[in-house]
This record gives sequence, C-alpha cells and structure tokens, in this order.
Amino acid sequence: MAQPAPASQSEMRRQNLSRVLHALADHGPQSRAEAASRIGLTRAAVSTLVDELMRAGLLVEQGPGRSGTVGRPGTVLQLADRGPCGLAAEIGVDHLAACAMDLRGAIRVRGRCDVNGRGGGPGPVLDRLTALLEEVAGQAAEQGLTPERLTVAVPGLVVRGGTTVVRAPNLGWRDTDLAPRLPASLGTLAVDNEANLGALAELWADRPDLPGTDLDDGPAGQAAAGGGGGGGGGGGGVAVGAADPADPAGTGPAVPHSPNGDSFIHVSAEIGIGAAVVIDGQLLRGGHGFAGELGHVPVRPDGRPCTCGGRGCLETYAGEEAVLREAGLEPGPGVRIDDLASRCAAGDQRTLRAVRRAGTALGIALSGAVNLLDPGRVVVGGALARLGPWLLPPLDRELARRTAVAAGGRPTPVPVRISRLGPDGPLLGAARTSVRALLDMPVRPAAA
Amino acid sequence: MAQPAPASQSEMRRQNLSRVLHALADHGPQSRAEAASRIGLTRAAVSTLVDELMRAGLLVEQGPGRSGTVGRPGTVLQLADRGPCGLAAEIGVDHLAACAMDLRGAIRVRGRCDVNGRGGGPGPVLDRLTALLEEVAGQAAEQGLTPERLTVAVPGLVVRGGTTVVRAPNLGWRDTDLAPRLPASLGTLAVDNEANLGALAELWADRPDLPGTDLDDGPAGQAAAGGGGGGGGGGGGVAVGAADPADPAGTGPAVPHSPNGDSFIHVSAEIGIGAAVVIDGQLLRGGHGFAGELGHVPVRPDGRPCTCGGRGCLETYAGEEAVLREAGLEPGPGVRIDDLASRCAAGDQRTLRAVRRAGTALGIALSGAVNLLDPGRVVVGGALARLGPWLLPPLDRELARRTAVAAGGRPTPVPVRISRLGPDGPLLGAARTSVRALLDMPVRPAAA
Repeated sequence: MAQPAPASQSEMRRQNLSRVLHALADHGPQSRAEAASRIGLTRAAVSTLVDELMRAGLLVEQGPGRSGTVGRPGTVLQLADRGPCGLAAEIGVDHLAACAMDLRGAIRVRGRCDVNGRGGGPGPVLDRLTALLEEVAGQAAEQGLTPERLTVAVPGLVVRGGTTVVRAPNLGWRDTDLAPRLPASLGTLAVDNEANLGALAELWADRPDLPGTDLDDGPAGQAAAGGGGGGGGGGGGVAVGAADPADPAGTGPAVPHSPNGDSFIHVSAEIGIGAAVVIDGQLLRGGHGFAGELGHVPVRPDGRPCTCGGRGCLETYAGEEAVLREAGLEPGPGVRIDDLASRCAAGDQRTLRAVRRAGTALGIALSGAVNLLDPGRVVVGGALARLGPWLLPPLDRELARRTAVAAGGRPTPVPVRISRLGPDGPLLGAARTSVRALLDMPVRPAAA
Repeated sequence: MAQPAPASQSEMRRQNLSRVLHALADHGPQSRAEAASRIGLTRAAVSTLVDELMRAGLLVEQGPGRSGTVGRPGTVLQLADRGPCGLAAEIGVDHLAACAMDLRGAIRVRGRCDVNGRGGGPGPVLDRLTALLEEVAGQAAEQGLTPERLTVAVPGLVVRGGTTVVRAPNLGWRDTDLAPRLPASLGTLAVDNEANLGALAELWADRPDLPGTDLDDGPAGQAAAGGGGGGGGGGGGVAVGAADPADPAGTGPAVPHSPNGDSFIHVSAEIGIGAAVVIDGQLLRGGHGFAGELGHVPVRPDGRPCTCGGRGCLETYAGEEAVLREAGLEPGPGVRIDDLASRCAAGDQRTLRAVRRAGTALGIALSGAVNLLDPGRVVVGGALARLGPWLLPPLDRELARRTAVAAGGRPTPVPVRISRLGPDGPLLGAARTSVRALLDMPVRPAAA
C-alpha cells in the first residue's frame, strides 16, 4: 500500500506521451480537451505533450471535428498514418509472411513467399525473410512510413522476452538467436511464439476499442489470394504489394464472439499444433515462456512416436502433416490444408476420415485442457481453421462426452469457434505487438 | 488511469482497520509506530484504529517489546488469541474433519470422524458435520474463542463465490446448497473445492510472512493420530480435542520449495483426483469456478468408463478407489491409502504394480498439463501423497519422456514434490481462508 517510488522526469514524460497515444488508439480521433479529461491531465499539459508528439510525427491534426459526439466543430487529433510504423513477420514451415502496420492499426503493405523451412537450417530461411522484409519496408517507405519495430512469429519456443528460438522442432532449429541475423534497420526486434501472437490478435480483435479493428471488414481469404499469389507452384516467388485499403487484413466479416469474458484457449493448428491460454484477458506465458504446447499433450499414450521424444502426442494425429499423410497425400510445398478442404468438400471418404480423426484427437486433448482450465470458449485458428465444417463435429462430440464435470454436469460444453482471423492471426498479432510497442515507448528512453 | 472513486467513510475505515490487522498477520508483533510506517498512515491515525480493534477484541498489547529488531523496549501489538476465530471443515467421502484457527494462524481445536458419504445423500453427512463443528466450536468457546467464519472444503464443484455444491460425483451430490443446512451460529459460510483450498494452503505455506507458518514444526502425521483416533474401526466415533500447541497442525518439518516463483499445479489425490492451478501466486478458478479437474483429463481415451460420463479419465486409473481395486483390496471405510502404503513398504508385488500404474497415469495427465501451462513445479498432496516413494518414479519418468518441449528440449523436467502439508492441506487452506476473511472484514459492513 506504500506509494510507488516517484518516476524520473523523463520516465514520467514518456508515460504521459504514451497515455496520449493510447487514448487516441483506444478511442479514436478526439480533441485535446477530450484527451485531457480522458487521461486526467490539464489541457495545457496535454497541449505540450501533443506538440511534442506532432513534432515526432506520431500525431496529426484533423480539420473540423468529425467525432459526431458533441457536434461543436473543432480540431481533432489523430494518430499519424505516415512516419513510424511497425513491421511483422511470420516464419512458417513452408511459407514466410510479412507486413507493415501504421499507428492507426491499418496494414499498409504485405508480402508472402513459399519456403522449404525443413532441415536447411535457419540461414537460408532468414536470408529469404530479410529480403522479404526489406521489400515490405521499401514499399512502406514509398508511403512515407518508417519501420521502427519488428515482431517475428515463429513456430517454436521462445524464451520469455528474448529473441532466441530455443526449439522449433518442425523447422529443426535450436537455440537460434534471430537478433544478429536480421538487419537492425528493420527496427527493434521482438520474437514470440506464433500461437501466442495469434491469441493476442484474437484477444485484441475482441475489443472494439483497440487499434486493428478496422481489419474486420471485407471478404474472407482475400489477403492470402490478393497479397500472396505464390501458392501455385513450389518456386517460392516473393509477392509483395500494397494492401487493399478496403480490406487491409483480408479477414472475414466480424462475427461477434460469445461475451464470455476474456478467458479462452486459442488453438493454432499449423504443421505443428500450438495453443495459447488467455486468462482474464492476460496471455499465460508460463515459467519459461513455453506455455501452450497443446501439440504435445498425449492423446494416445502408447501411440505414434513424436519428434519431441514422447509418444501419441496430439500433433502426431492432428498436425497438418499427419492429416495429409492419413488422407494419402505426401506433405510438401504446395500441398496444403487447402487441398484437404477441397477434397472434403468433394466428399472424398479417405480425406473425410482423416479430418474426423484429427478432430477427435483435438477434442481429446482439448477436453483435458478444458477440464483443467474451465475457459469461456475455445478458438480454432491457423491453417486447420479452414477444415472447420468437418473438424468441428467430432471435436464438439469429444468435448461434450469428456467435459461434463467442467460444465458442472450440465449439458453445456464449452463453445468452440473458428477464428475469424483465420491463418492471418499470428501475423496480425505480431503487427499489433509492434505498433503497441511504438505507442508504449514514443521516445527513446533517456539515460537518466 | 483515472483516479478511483473515493471510498465511503465507512469503507475507508474498514480498509484501514484491515491494513493494521494484515500488517500484524504478515510481519508479526510490532509497535504502533512500526505499523504506522508500514502502512503509510500517521501514528495518530493508527492509534485510533488500534483502539477500535482492541475494543473489538481483535488486537492485544504485549508487554515490553520482544521483537528484537530495535532493542528499545516498548509496547507491541499482537493479534488476539482469544475472541473471533475461524472454523474450517473438510467433507471427504469417508471422513469429516473440522478445526478452529485463531487470528494468529494457530489451530486450537481439531476433530475428525469417519462417515460413509457415498449414496446416502447430503442429509446424514451434513448432520454429522454439524455435530462435529458444534463440538469443535464448543471446545473453542472454552478457550475464549468465538467462531465468526466457516469455510467448508468439498470434493466437488462449487460455483465461484457461492455455497452450492454443483456436483460431487464421489458423494453423489448435485446442486446441494450448504447454507441452509449448517447453523448460522458457526459463522458466515464459504464453500470451496478441496483441491483449491489445498493449493491455497500450499501457496500461503510458501510465504513465511503469512499467518499459519507456525504450523510447520513438529513431526509429520502427528495430528491425524493425536486429534483423530477414529481411524481404527468403521464406527465413526467423533474425536475432538485441543490441538497440541507445540504442533498445532501436525505437519512435517519445513522443506523449502524450489524458488521457482509461485506458479504450480497442485494435485490433490483423494478418492477422486482434483487439482488446482496457481499462476503467479493467483489461484486459477476458471470461468465457472470449475478449473482444476485433472481427474477427468483423458489418459486412455478408449479406456474404462468414468462416473463423469467420459472414458479413460485419470481418476479411473489413479483415484484411491481404482488403486485399491487394482491392488486387490475392496474400497470401504477403514481400508485406505495407508494400507496401500504399508503393503508397498512390505514389498507386496500386486500393490506395487497398482501404485506404479497410478503413477504412470498421473504422469500422462500431468504431462499434458505441464505442456499446456509450463508451471514452476508440481506438488502432490492429499492421501496419495503417502505413496510418494512408489508413485513418484513412474510419474517422473512420464514427465521426462513427454515434456521435453515444455523444458525447451533440455533434460530438465518440471520438479515434482510431495506436499509437506500432506492430507491436511485442504483443511488448513479452509481455516486460513476463514481467518483471512476475518482480517479483511474486521467490522460489519455499514449500510452506507
């Protein structure tokens, strides 16, 4: 209950600058007076802060007020759509993706290319990623944007707060520090697990007052086709382009989630299966930062050997590769979940059986997680999300059978939803992480 | 960042009274001046609060200062060891236990009796419990203690913050509200899951500055024998007695836990198996309050049918009843884990095999939990804790095999410890919950 130690002058200044930016990010364009009353500072103090933020290119003034709340026309402040921006990248086992997001939360440039990440070590993959990011940064520069933060989503374990990938079994990476391998010119680096970033995207998308919710418009799947285009062959040509301003992230229409609070398990099914646990709006990171390894929850304890050294892990039944093999398809660049989805739609029995098995395995592993955590809902994201219509019925059935206790004996199993962000979740989460870091730290920390 | 709304006069007074009490509970006897500096109020303000707390019988003055920190003799304040106290009860499937704890955290009276809780419905069990609690309260009264709070630990699901047992499969209870069935004279009622309360006891025992740490002295197992004595027959005679002041809780010697932070999974193995998840020092309760149902995590998805409606739940392999049957013993009052432990010690092969199987099943379920949550440690409490020497090796082996990913690929599986509180955990947690409620709310809330 003691008073916190007084912050230094420069730290207090940083905090106040950040509060102004967050007020704009959370509540949209507003006047100095509105911002002042919102953050509890005098209007004079806010004006000084605003001047500094405008000089730094983080804020702009906008003509007569259009907020529509009060009616009196006046100058409103808005986050800049030029100047500092955040970069994001996603390292997948068979693809790379990158984007640039402005302070308002709009994706301005995005790019994607195929790679074969397996077995070749981090060198070639990170060289390709550097080229992709530099192309994205170049196009962002043409729009007046300067990358200052870079967040990279990886399919592996990352030490809490660090830049080292401790282990990414499906890439074959171990103790790989990304910091010396990516150019510092792309911005201050952060690295996180893709499932964690996907869950953060999901969490922030649930809150209409945070940046990035203008990503919810437009037809589903648009971005992968529009921004990508490299999916046809295995050649891995880089495709980078300005994002469609009407559909910056290419996510589906906004489907309101159940208002069950912000506690959920987010399953991110790529070639490996990861998950993230969000409790009361907070991402659970775990003691080492390794929480969420749903893919290695045992579902058949004496079952198939797994790359992790265990047996019968969920990943060996429901990972993309396992499902492809079960369906009689040889995994590899260009053969992906999309093929499974079209075969399911065409009624191919072998594929349908493979996907049902995956759904059952996912349901068994999630039953354990639900019994343990009693979350408000389960969100299925990543590539397997496209298999929803065939994956969810067996998944729901296992949950209904196995979580009666967690439901208090009532026949109300936890709701399972397909993420409306689809496979874009991790990249979006990474981009928003970069932008939030910019809003948190609008000035370089002073030496004092 | 806005200022919190100013509390009402009476609410501020309550908060300040509570802060004085918690300062004494957390840091032991101290002078008014020490308390004032600790909680950031003036000495005059603290003196007024102290006068009120002394009038209410919650605080006493102690002769010349014996704190030994400053040396200058003076009057020190201490929590009262007479007056308001907390009651606690534990409803097991084959036993009931109750105790009275004073404000200093010492158990002053405890009692125990056998019951057959299965199938007879809540009526007879709660009648027995009422008799036991009234006997404990009577002996507490003889020591000048007045019960004002009662916390009951139950082997089932309790709605968050409520007094209704939604479901206790091993008792056969459903939607049983305890409030109308226990006399109001025993104090304001709280009901919680036994695994949650065991985890809270574990959490608080880890902090040497919280009340109840004088429970750590004395030989293990003393209390069950000393305070109980009803274990011999199935007759269920009530045994109540003043606790040995040198060993109020009868717990084992203090074994320091690994300083891995306060994130752990606490497995409470009784006839059913429950667990509680503590993250950063906070008990995870889940959306409905039903988190921690480790007993219904599937370990063999097509295995034995479980009372919950699922199949192959952990409880069907590692619950007390399952282990007894596997060892060739018919479960029932008087035949318990103790018998298993003595047979293991005597080298009985069938029993050893049964316990090893339980350890393996526990290891499979916990592997999933560890992969999902990345906790600092696992604590095994409750009755199965007595089987530690035989249970832990197979459990550790499964964790080592199956959590390499959670350990970042390093050969350092999460440490598993036997709770030093043993089977007393839930009752201790309940008693401390009662006492903490008294410290939180030293005066009745005012109408304003």
